[in-house]
Amino acid sequence: MSITKKVFRSGPYADLIAQGVQVGNTLYLSGQVGMREDHSVPEDIVEQISLAYSNIVAVLAEFGATMDNIVDETFLVTSVEEVMQNLEAIYGAREQAYGQKPGVSQTLIGVAALLLPELKLEIKCIAHL
Amino acid sequence: MSITKKVFRSGPYADLIAQGVQVGNTLYLSGQVGMREDHSVPEDIVEQISLAYSNIVAVLAEFGATMDNIVDETFLVTSVEEVMQNLEAIYGAREQAYGQKPGVSQTLIGVAALLLPELKLEIKCIAHL
Amino acid sequence: MSITKKVFRSGPYADLIAQGVQVGNTLYLSGQVGMREDHSVPEDIVEQISLAYSNIVAVLAEFGATMDNIVDETFLVTSVEEVMQNLEAIYGAREQAYGQKPGVSQTLIGVAALLLPELKLEIKCIAHL
Repeated sequence: MSITKKVFRSGPYADLIAQGVQVGNTLYLSGQVGMREDHSVPEDIVEQISLAYSNIVAVLAEFGATMDNIVDETFLVTSVEEVMQNLEAIYGAREQAYGQKPGVSQTLIGVAALLLPELKLEIKCIAHL
Repeated sequence: MSITKKVFRSGPYADLIAQGVQVGNTLYLSGQVGMREDHSVPEDIVEQISLAYSNIVAVLAEFGATMDNIVDETFLVTSVEEVMQNLEAIYGAREQAYGQKPGVSQTLIGVAALLLPELKLEIKCIAHL
Repeated sequence: MSITKKVFRSGPYADLIAQGVQVGNTLYLSGQVGMREDHSVPEDIVEQISLAYSNIVAVLAEFGATMDNIVDETFLVTSVEEVMQNLEAIYGAREQAYGQKPGVSQTLIGVAALLLPELKLEIKCIAHL
């Protein structure tokens, strides 16, 4: 049984994983992190959030989509405490990325580790087109 | 590219996240926890499970759906050990919530932390309508 | 509101959870682990990966699907460090399971615990038919 996928690859792991895969109207994005193009990572969690959303926007654009197309988010964070202490700034940066109060379901998970020790969060999204 | 979403907001974080988002026939629910309406959390993991499913039922109802519409679950737990020690009671409470042996895929993950320290589990569901 | 699901059950928890649930063209798989049919678990993470994919192939086959149908993966690992130290071998085993460079989105999460202490990873997949 064969399906038609549209696949977008990018970044240091382009050989291993796709950053986005569309099948039918559903678009699965790999978890995006707050890494700059030179692979550096800011210490501030709010900057990491903004950068992660910039990376999400870039993946969405490859499929002709925007933040409006996101329906579900999983927030993977290394410190729930740090998130709760910076709740206003973090969700402010998120609302700015969406350009409005997002109509998106979200699950927040405190993880044991992410890909690199300096990463404080990763955002995994599902979008529909 | 514009999509039509149906969005349901509720609870203490209604301004930040949606509890459910439907697009086409797919319904994404935010992770639901064992919190009472007064925001208190029972200590017993089995009570937390039952409460979490009550909250899931309430979100589903907003979309005209029931537990029969759930297709996939992620069980996020702070202690896999406690789950294994109470396996019968936990899955009994789950079967009671479904009203039958559920035909649902499930992934159990031991997490480092959930939103509040007193929470022992969170259930993230995908439903189809 | 009633939906039509195709459900496949198997293994030690067949009474509790389904290993795969298809609704429309979407197939949700429960997280699969590197366990042999006799329930033993190899110590080597690369062997665990290969075994987990064998189990995924077996679930997919019940729905007339193959690895080509997978669109999204979540890699749940107990040690991100061990994954990074064995990156080539691990992704080599993955590519072998797919029979080609997979066009699949992936999110890697360091978890606090999996179902059994000897498990080093679990792979949760979504497929489309």
